[in-house]
Amino acid sequence: MVGDALQSLAFQLVAQDQQIENGQKIKMLHLLAVAAGSRGMAGGQAIDLESTNVVLTQADLEIMHLHKTGALIHAATLMGAYSAVNKNTKKAEAVEHFSKAIGLAFQVIDDILDAEADTETLGKTAGKDADANKSTYVTLLGLNKAKTLANELHQNAVNALSGFGQEADLLRQLANFIMQRSF
Amino acid sequence: MVGDALQSLAFQLVAQDQQIENGQKIKMLHLLAVAAGSRGMAGGQAIDLESTNVVLTQADLEIMHLHKTGALIHAATLMGAYSAVNKNTKKAEAVEHFSKAIGLAFQVIDDILDAEADTETLGKTAGKDADANKSTYVTLLGLNKAKTLANELHQNAVNALSGFGQEADLLRQLANFIMQRSF
Repeated sequence: MVGDALQSLAFQLVAQDQQIENGQKIKMLHLLAVAAGSRGMAGGQAIDLESTNVVLTQADLEIMHLHKTGALIHAATLMGAYSAVNKNTKKAEAVEHFSKAIGLAFQVIDDILDAEADTETLGKTAGKDADANKSTYVTLLGLNKAKTLANELHQNAVNALSGFGQEADLLRQLANFIMQRSF
Repeated sequence: MVGDALQSLAFQLVAQDQQIENGQKIKMLHLLAVAAGSRGMAGGQAIDLESTNVVLTQADLEIMHLHKTGALIHAATLMGAYSAVNKNTKKAEAVEHFSKAIGLAFQVIDDILDAEADTETLGKTAGKDADANKSTYVTLLGLNKAKTLANELHQNAVNALSGFGQEADLLRQLANFIMQRSF
């Protein structure tokens, strides 16, 4: 229920902002709604729940994760671009590219942490996914290839920001933080 | 999770509407967000969960219900008024008055049904609130006074619409439907 309340709060905060122009706000709110809904987080979570004891392909896994947390990371990043007063389509596309790559990297790292870290470091029960017979990037690719994939996605994300100066430093820090959670 | 997805869908549908002006949409989305959040439905539900084995006063009960389902009935009704092209503050106030009264009537009826109806009619387990030691309008006022209160609230709601012609007939039907669920 706290989650329900916080989800509403996200919409409320955008709607009541005094500085962003109404048309941009609508675009942001629409993006957030889609990212949270049946074609985003809620839908991805449904796929996840249905995937216990099912062997997924890497493509299936990618689709699930692009929906799940990935959709929200994507929306949160892109909403920043949408809220900028000087809109620039090329730059928004670059941020979109960044957010998809880093959202997926987050999930790959999550799978690696689940397999490698102890419960204390993780803040949640380690080995939970494997115990539930879930397909993860680690069960699918093995630990080493999963780590390579995470690094590639991170590089991919950082490269997408090459057209930005220091105004994108927060996004770069976010990308580094996501990688440092792990190894 | 279906609830989460449907809640997002409500925001999405308003945001992507092509006919309502952006400023009005923002007003509607803000109203919906507040009604669903910690000061609305989620907050009311929290009070409800905390109220097991606690004797509430009628004022407490009213506050809880104005937050819970009442907040959403209120928002749903008022969003209709906000979406009207010809805005009229007096009429919006009348709709607001209507929605508060009918939202509360809905809850009083709900308590009466919980005490009176069998499980089949109700579509959920009858007597659940009393079993859970919850304060309801029936435990607080008794069945007869609760029915009188429901009728008063209904009358109150219908009277609030006196300035409208047949354009408010759907709201009047809604009010009657809420009463006919019961006795």
